[in-house]
Amino acid sequence: MSTTYGTHPGTGLPETVQIYEVGARDGLQNEKNPVPTAVKTEFITRLAAAGLTTIEATSFVHPKWVPQLADAADVVDALTGLSGVRLPVLVPNLAGLARALEHGVTDIAVFVSATETFSQKNLNCSVTESLTTVEKVITEAKATAGEQISIRGYVSMCFGDPWEGQTDIAAVVDVGSRLLEMGCYELSLGDTIGVATPGHVEQLIGAFDAARHPAAQLAVHFHDTYGQALANTLAALQTGVTTVDSSAGGLGGCPYAKSATGNLATEDLVWQLHGLGIRTGVDLDALVRTSAWMAGELGRPSPSRVVRALTSDGAP
Amino acid sequence: MSTTYGTHPGTGLPETVQIYEVGARDGLQNEKNPVPTAVKTEFITRLAAAGLTTIEATSFVHPKWVPQLADAADVVDALTGLSGVRLPVLVPNLAGLARALEHGVTDIAVFVSATETFSQKNLNCSVTESLTTVEKVITEAKATAGEQISIRGYVSMCFGDPWEGQTDIAAVVDVGSRLLEMGCYELSLGDTIGVATPGHVEQLIGAFDAARHPAAQLAVHFHDTYGQALANTLAALQTGVTTVDSSAGGLGGCPYAKSATGNLATEDLVWQLHGLGIRTGVDLDALVRTSAWMAGELGRPSPSRVVRALTSDGAP
Repeated sequence: MSTTYGTHPGTGLPETVQIYEVGARDGLQNEKNPVPTAVKTEFITRLAAAGLTTIEATSFVHPKWVPQLADAADVVDALTGLSGVRLPVLVPNLAGLARALEHGVTDIAVFVSATETFSQKNLNCSVTESLTTVEKVITEAKATAGEQISIRGYVSMCFGDPWEGQTDIAAVVDVGSRLLEMGCYELSLGDTIGVATPGHVEQLIGAFDAARHPAAQLAVHFHDTYGQALANTLAALQTGVTTVDSSAGGLGGCPYAKSATGNLATEDLVWQLHGLGIRTGVDLDALVRTSAWMAGELGRPSPSRVVRALTSDGAP
Repeated sequence: MSTTYGTHPGTGLPETVQIYEVGARDGLQNEKNPVPTAVKTEFITRLAAAGLTTIEATSFVHPKWVPQLADAADVVDALTGLSGVRLPVLVPNLAGLARALEHGVTDIAVFVSATETFSQKNLNCSVTESLTTVEKVITEAKATAGEQISIRGYVSMCFGDPWEGQTDIAAVVDVGSRLLEMGCYELSLGDTIGVATPGHVEQLIGAFDAARHPAAQLAVHFHDTYGQALANTLAALQTGVTTVDSSAGGLGGCPYAKSATGNLATEDLVWQLHGLGIRTGVDLDALVRTSAWMAGELGRPSPSRVVRALTSDGAP
């Protein structure tokens, strides 16, 4: 169904985009009700079958903070046989790293906030302290698992922060550069509260480029809280970014609560990319069926516009 | 609240955008329950107070087809005193034109479909027959009201049609050029089912330019059915388009039914434009309050992401 309306390449866009799928982690960590481990692993398996090749599986955060992901080790163990797909996991600290490595993980992601207030509220420490923790995690990961371990860096609140307003571009470049210099192969620039607009995206990526970190080292992670995620994605692609984070079915945040429409939906992203003739490897039909099924498991319609348009109200 | 996150100009974008507000007509014509005339005129008055300077007020279509707008003449009469704002009305045929002119209208809009199937289903005639009707309306309008009457042309299904799939770009340029040559001052290119992607927008506008109809004669009218409206708007602005249609609160289509998320929400558009430092003259706070109030009148939350983020669930 995704090809009925043809493909129309745009000016200055890449031929291929790597989608970094975050629904199973960034989406499900926000669910009020616990999701059974078997549902999570079926979700990830179906996402892989739909052609997604990088699927963040879970987070080895302490269950006290995110009880929704207390089954991280079980999820990883259950997916051992899944081939042809990278399954990175989020690792907040050395304890989480130890658990992840124990379960054979070779692909991890670390995170810091670009703003002090969010760092204090989310991580209970300053940005500098947070960078110190991350440095320890990276050093330990390489010492234990060898240089071949893949480490991705997330920076949150890259455009705005609910307490501080507009985020200083220099602060984002500073924090992000530190992560890249510590050995992250890629940086995901997060618009955690969804306030970015396309010129801001262009300027931030330009500032990284000026700091000798070209777009090839960057990924973008937009939220649709103010409806801007796909326009911002287009702006990022125009600057040379070729990796985009998104969440199958738009999981993450509650679509019916204030300020909390969540992650960019993978289906909406794929509609745009395929319409532009950009290859993703994703079978949109299979992906929509997967998200509609997951919406049924979660008991509410998907907030993805594409899922809602192509199914009966986003439910299976 | 719209400036908390700063302004960040993007490359190759205009300094000012004219918003053509369609909520009162294109939005309310789709409401199941009748909206009282007084609510419509309060809505339009409040939109004008929020800084919108072009507000399509109603349609002089036969009440048999669109009973929701049967009070067209009353709406126009009630707004006679509203100054500093253009209040165009849709006119489908000579009978509608006669009623509109009788009530002092000096700004009208005509419409045709780019595809045969939609023309037959929506207007019960071929595209050629429809163009003949429009030509009669334009000729009569100029003969009766003088050359100073403003006539806008809408072309629907410019990117895809539910029955025909992808719309032929040449067909859109052909129909659109006819409208411009008949005397329309501007053409609104409608993505009625919301399937367009940015490269398609770029190519269609480029094809008009090649046919000696530059972007200055064009407006864009996107729907958010597949979440693409704002990315398509960005692409249109990058080609030089400076007039964008949108609907306050995202009115139009039912946001909770299959395939029917509606018009681009004016609030979401304004968030993008103001973030880019593009002037619109709109007071976003006042606009959000207006749409939240209207959501209360209609008895359901606004589908606008910005309205939902800035109010309690999009309700007043």
